Amino acid sequence: MREFYLIEKAKEIFGIDREDVLVGVGEDDCAVVRVGDANLVLTTDCVHEKTDFPPGTRPEEMGHIALAVNLSDLASCGARPLFFLYTITLSPSYEERFEEILLGIRRLADRYGVAVVGGDTDFGDELHISGFAVGVADRFVTRSGARVGDRVCVTGELGKAQLSLEMLLSGKSRDELPFPKSLFSPEPRVEEGMRLAEHASAMTDVSDSLAVSLNSISRSSGVGIEIYEDSLPLDHLTDFVDYERALELFLYAGGDYELVYTSKKCEHYEIGRVVEGEGVWLVGEGRRRVEFRGYSHL
Amino acid sequence: MREFYLIEKAKEIFGIDREDVLVGVGEDDCAVVRVGDANLVLTTDCVHEKTDFPPGTRPEEMGHIALAVNLSDLASCGARPLFFLYTITLSPSYEERFEEILLGIRRLADRYGVAVVGGDTDFGDELHISGFAVGVADRFVTRSGARVGDRVCVTGELGKAQLSLEMLLSGKSRDELPFPKSLFSPEPRVEEGMRLAEHASAMTDVSDSLAVSLNSISRSSGVGIEIYEDSLPLDHLTDFVDYERALELFLYAGGDYELVYTSKKCEHYEIGRVVEGEGVWLVGEGRRRVEFRGYSHL
Repeated sequence: MREFYLIEKAKEIFGIDREDVLVGVGEDDCAVVRVGDANLVLTTDCVHEKTDFPPGTRPEEMGHIALAVNLSDLASCGARPLFFLYTITLSPSYEERFEEILLGIRRLADRYGVAVVGGDTDFGDELHISGFAVGVADRFVTRSGARVGDRVCVTGELGKAQLSLEMLLSGKSRDELPFPKSLFSPEPRVEEGMRLAEHASAMTDVSDSLAVSLNSISRSSGVGIEIYEDSLPLDHLTDFVDYERALELFLYAGGDYELVYTSKKCEHYEIGRVVEGEGVWLVGEGRRRVEFRGYSHL
Repeated sequence: MREFYLIEKAKEIFGIDREDVLVGVGEDDCAVVRVGDANLVLTTDCVHEKTDFPPGTRPEEMGHIALAVNLSDLASCGARPLFFLYTITLSPSYEERFEEILLGIRRLADRYGVAVVGGDTDFGDELHISGFAVGVADRFVTRSGARVGDRVCVTGELGKAQLSLEMLLSGKSRDELPFPKSLFSPEPRVEEGMRLAEHASAMTDVSDSLAVSLNSISRSSGVGIEIYEDSLPLDHLTDFVDYERALELFLYAGGDYELVYTSKKCEHYEIGRVVEGEGVWLVGEGRRRVEFRGYSHL
């Protein structure tokens, strides 16, 4: 995961000590800055034709995904999304589909009261969309506030996107996939994020994998995390794959748009506890480490 | 200039009527939105290895340019820049140079008090940097406020970047170029933009060409603009090319980072006047139209 090395480099180079920078580069899913009397929550994320869109993704879904990844970042900080800007590099095969891409952005934006206020379009060999989202949050949540004794919760079932992707790549059509929406038009947990900001002590989204997310919270908060195997919702996966594979998908697959959080209060699936110590542990018949890794077949 | 067609499409799709959106998609160089008690000025711009960097551009200069184009947008609205975020797609040949790219961003950011607060890096076939800048402005300037009788002014000499680029492409080395800084590390007019916001009636930066910028102001403001040929500073060009070519470069070449503005008060080169009517006109021995076009050999 060479991205993580690059994030460390960026943290080193862009480290800054300024009163109006509450959360800076590489510290969390979003930056948080102070302007006037508001906490602005800022994030940026880009998607590429080759690496981020499953085969068969429609142009409108590409626009949807480009906005959704950014809204998911804002949600993970508990922010209310307000504004979005994009840059699109159009490859020749997508020039005619430009309008559909924008319509995909617009439809998702409307659902969450996001105004798309800026864009820049140019031309290149590969379709590429970078998004920038701006939100506000009176109380924002980072990865670093988990406390011993907190419950560990996740807003929804995991592994659906990767399972669907694997079935698609093995020759199934879109219509045959069990969770096509998870793959082609995932819904960011915007409302959930805002509500959870009232009580969550730490939060992040599950984009790389649950394992990466939990390890990030564990490291940033200086705590250990135990996940209880018998509390994991796996039925939606074991309908299609065996138990071991389902567990692997749940812990290590990327591409889902759920939030994982720690809190005294669990509003969704409760899967574990914050404990003394360090690292993330799966507690079942034994106690084994949940590694810092995630994957996607894209 | 198919970009302009795409901008029109985007305006159509993202049109929105919201009290907190003062300037939206495609209306100006930046969006202006209201958050709390502040006018936030937002912009985004992307640059590519193949289309935006002259041959021989150093990685640090690439970072510089990626930030500079965004700061120039903010300057053209009279905003004070505060924060910057980027997405970088690293091609294999630049992976080792990542740090230099970031250092180029950091150095320019420091010069103008900009905190780099977010970034996202991934991998692809071509180096690509998208930038997103946030500023504030009590009074912001758009292209639409020019009034008949205003002076037309430009903050610096034009055509330098394109002249240097042409010499570079015709075989000259970097050391032999007359204006290498204009080409490889252009300085956005940040301080000038903030100061001009106090009195300019309309303003934009000269990225595509003076002709494009003036025609944009003319259209948005519903006025005509006359440029007086004998007032144009061309000496820096006629040292290298003949008069006709110099005039062409001054009016139609892209790549400079100057601001053009209309005001009762001119602080820089005064080159014309806002008049009744429509269109942009060059007044010399006769009166001929300045077309809506710009170019760069990149």
